[in-house]
Amino acid sequence: MSIKHDFIFGKGEMITRWYNILPDLPFELPPPLNPQTLEPVSPEDLLSIFPEEVVRQEVSPDEFIEIPGPVLDVYRLWRPTPLLRAKRLEERLSTPARIYFKFEGFSPVGSHKGNTAVAQAYFNRKEGTKRLTTETGAGQWGTALSMACAFFDLECTVYMVRISYEQKHYRRTLMEVYGSEVLPSPSTRTKTGSGILSADPQHPGSLGIAISEAVEDAFSHPSTKYSLGSVLNHVLLHQTVIGEETLLQLEKIGEKADVLIGCVGGGSNFGGLVLPFLRDFLRAKKSGGPQPFKPRIIAVEPTACPSLTRGIYAYDFGDTAGIVPALKMFTLGHGFVPPSIHAGGLRYHGMSPILSGLYKEGLIEARAVGQREVFQAAVLFAKMEGFLPAPESAHAVKAAIDVALEAKEKNEPLCIVFNLSGHGYLDLGAYEAHLKGLLQDYEPGVEIERSLKTLPQKPRVGDS
Amino acid sequence: MSIKHDFIFGKGEMITRWYNILPDLPFELPPPLNPQTLEPVSPEDLLSIFPEEVVRQEVSPDEFIEIPGPVLDVYRLWRPTPLLRAKRLEERLSTPARIYFKFEGFSPVGSHKGNTAVAQAYFNRKEGTKRLTTETGAGQWGTALSMACAFFDLECTVYMVRISYEQKHYRRTLMEVYGSEVLPSPSTRTKTGSGILSADPQHPGSLGIAISEAVEDAFSHPSTKYSLGSVLNHVLLHQTVIGEETLLQLEKIGEKADVLIGCVGGGSNFGGLVLPFLRDFLRAKKSGGPQPFKPRIIAVEPTACPSLTRGIYAYDFGDTAGIVPALKMFTLGHGFVPPSIHAGGLRYHGMSPILSGLYKEGLIEARAVGQREVFQAAVLFAKMEGFLPAPESAHAVKAAIDVALEAKEKNEPLCIVFNLSGHGYLDLGAYEAHLKGLLQDYEPGVEIERSLKTLPQKPRVGDS
Repeated sequence: MSIKHDFIFGKGEMITRWYNILPDLPFELPPPLNPQTLEPVSPEDLLSIFPEEVVRQEVSPDEFIEIPGPVLDVYRLWRPTPLLRAKRLEERLSTPARIYFKFEGFSPVGSHKGNTAVAQAYFNRKEGTKRLTTETGAGQWGTALSMACAFFDLECTVYMVRISYEQKHYRRTLMEVYGSEVLPSPSTRTKTGSGILSADPQHPGSLGIAISEAVEDAFSHPSTKYSLGSVLNHVLLHQTVIGEETLLQLEKIGEKADVLIGCVGGGSNFGGLVLPFLRDFLRAKKSGGPQPFKPRIIAVEPTACPSLTRGIYAYDFGDTAGIVPALKMFTLGHGFVPPSIHAGGLRYHGMSPILSGLYKEGLIEARAVGQREVFQAAVLFAKMEGFLPAPESAHAVKAAIDVALEAKEKNEPLCIVFNLSGHGYLDLGAYEAHLKGLLQDYEPGVEIERSLKTLPQKPRVGDS
Repeated sequence: MSIKHDFIFGKGEMITRWYNILPDLPFELPPPLNPQTLEPVSPEDLLSIFPEEVVRQEVSPDEFIEIPGPVLDVYRLWRPTPLLRAKRLEERLSTPARIYFKFEGFSPVGSHKGNTAVAQAYFNRKEGTKRLTTETGAGQWGTALSMACAFFDLECTVYMVRISYEQKHYRRTLMEVYGSEVLPSPSTRTKTGSGILSADPQHPGSLGIAISEAVEDAFSHPSTKYSLGSVLNHVLLHQTVIGEETLLQLEKIGEKADVLIGCVGGGSNFGGLVLPFLRDFLRAKKSGGPQPFKPRIIAVEPTACPSLTRGIYAYDFGDTAGIVPALKMFTLGHGFVPPSIHAGGLRYHGMSPILSGLYKEGLIEARAVGQREVFQAAVLFAKMEGFLPAPESAHAVKAAIDVALEAKEKNEPLCIVFNLSGHGYLDLGAYEAHLKGLLQDYEPGVEIERSLKTLPQKPRVGDS
């Protein structure tokens, strides 16, 4: 192995502004709908859940938004994150492709989730919020918001899907170390939870239920707001630091991405990486100049929860109880309960409205991969590059390997960049199951058809 | 909080050579003794365990040793590691001191152990070794060597203290992901292990026993060598990348360390940080020039295993069975079985001969801290700076906080630098026990007196 300068891209500049793609989108984003009336939500509806600045960002016309100093101070604990070349993996695959990965696992919470958690906690603190509520499945998001609340002296209550609460002691303990109150969901703390428990005291819980509880809690307590870790525009906005850093790091070594890859649950780590790479293309297209270069952009989802590849583009609720605004997105139906794969962060029925629109317009591709092939790819990656991928991020690893092998077939010297959105050191139980051959693949069929019948049936404003 | 340039020191240059303190030591290091004869070991004795290059480094007269390209290529996955300022912690303590921490947890194996594992695997591979054996307690070292062997295509057998093997599935699984064979020690694979098991089939094992088994395995198989993760000179040599990077990073921001702090088990992460800081002082002293500046250097050990603060400076075996060379060091006696604190990496009866000599000469200080105050310090650190310290590294955190508070008393604007040698994301079980108030403090008494009677009683060559 030769010593190549391109092993050492961690060392870039700090990004000081987030990129807002809204003004550059080639289409109008359908508005969120009030869950009761299914009429477009009023700002007041949103302000009862989120702080003003966040609501402003959700619909901002500005191309860039400055990152506040106190947020940058926290980012500097782990940012800029490194862009590393997977040289040993390339050699193992004997591919002509160059494989780079942006590693978000250096964050104290082990994933990209800290990028938006810190921003949301800061804006809430600035506007006088005393307490934040949220939901968490596997625990990555709950951990990130817990750390952010510790930094900005906010109380934090996390509704954790009961089955994870009971099985994932490590994540739960980490949230408690940061000072959060962690409750198993469904809980007796809310009407939604109590109702479900009275019907089934052993209910294992779901992300949709936990969201309903966290939002109900925020609605019903003073100076308490709710915080969401994916899907919404402002969350993708905060995650664009990933893509902006990657653009600078690639430029620094004279590289240009031919293919961009990321895993998608709600879409925030993927959006964070790819949106800045669409900027020049979208602007050039608008200005009607010569057709500019656009990299291939591939979203990778689990076959167990294939929102893009098997869902439909329609208005749907983000939660089970239907108390949060309905969004126009690719969805499997808010009634869909995904099989319990280990990539808990990808078990969401819907998808970011921005990404849903880009996918509908054909600006991004999507593919679904099975759990077992994903873990095989993750183990190969760990042996070649050392870092153990989170089960979610391993979906991107699998796709990157496949694209590198396709490039080998066609003998194309592609530049492949994927987002390794988090590490898997708190998911070793899943790796143990994999090594023992206990993992299954899932391909839901009728469950999806059934749940798609549960979409909100009213005006369907802005539907097409 | 203001945005300070000194938040962002991750971004330094790569160190390309290790610092060898041997020629600068103000004393002669007593030679290792053959465990049977207690006469100085021959190079042949060592070559039956270690590769030539490693044996050469163990006694090298060169001030610097170039880091081979393939080793640098691997280092670049996580090096240079960041030197971060614990600004929020300083504010919380309202101390005039500036607290910096060098964070080794960014390594794929989560600790500084990778720095020497990669080097040892490379030198073995280069000299034709096919398989490495080693021991591991909590699992940090076994994980590091497993990754290194995966990088350089070596087989790896890890003898893991049985109690950890049965309780710490996560670490064991991580080693298996990297492709290692992990055996519970005592095992039936060796004479030592079989003997112990026949006497007590339920024996929980100990580090000393695991070392004996790993060495016996290496002795008794072709193209198989043994690898040690601490204590020896070549291990500290490889760890000096930590201190060399820190020197550059401090210089870059015009800082000078007044106090250096690290936790000590065998002494490798501590030695790696502090040895380069002693270079100028030792050389100036030798050349008899004006008394140069020397920072305070504090080694932190657990009260449960206080080798420096309560051990004696004498020849002792490094393992239980007494089959590895005896070393002149501060020891609690090779028969001492430390209470099972969660900082498994600090549960070693001896201490690096280099550090033992420096301590005897009064060039470094030592203090012992209790398990509960250590975890309290670690939780405060996590809330202020995000990163969760490994239980071992938390000993350094505790001491850094104490020194910062002493500086507050005396109103001294000290520059404190400590080594956060690893993260604690695989030790959350210990944090859960702490939050539940289940942790104990230990202060062994008679156990130490008793074990000190087990020191090798023969010529005591070079003893004083």
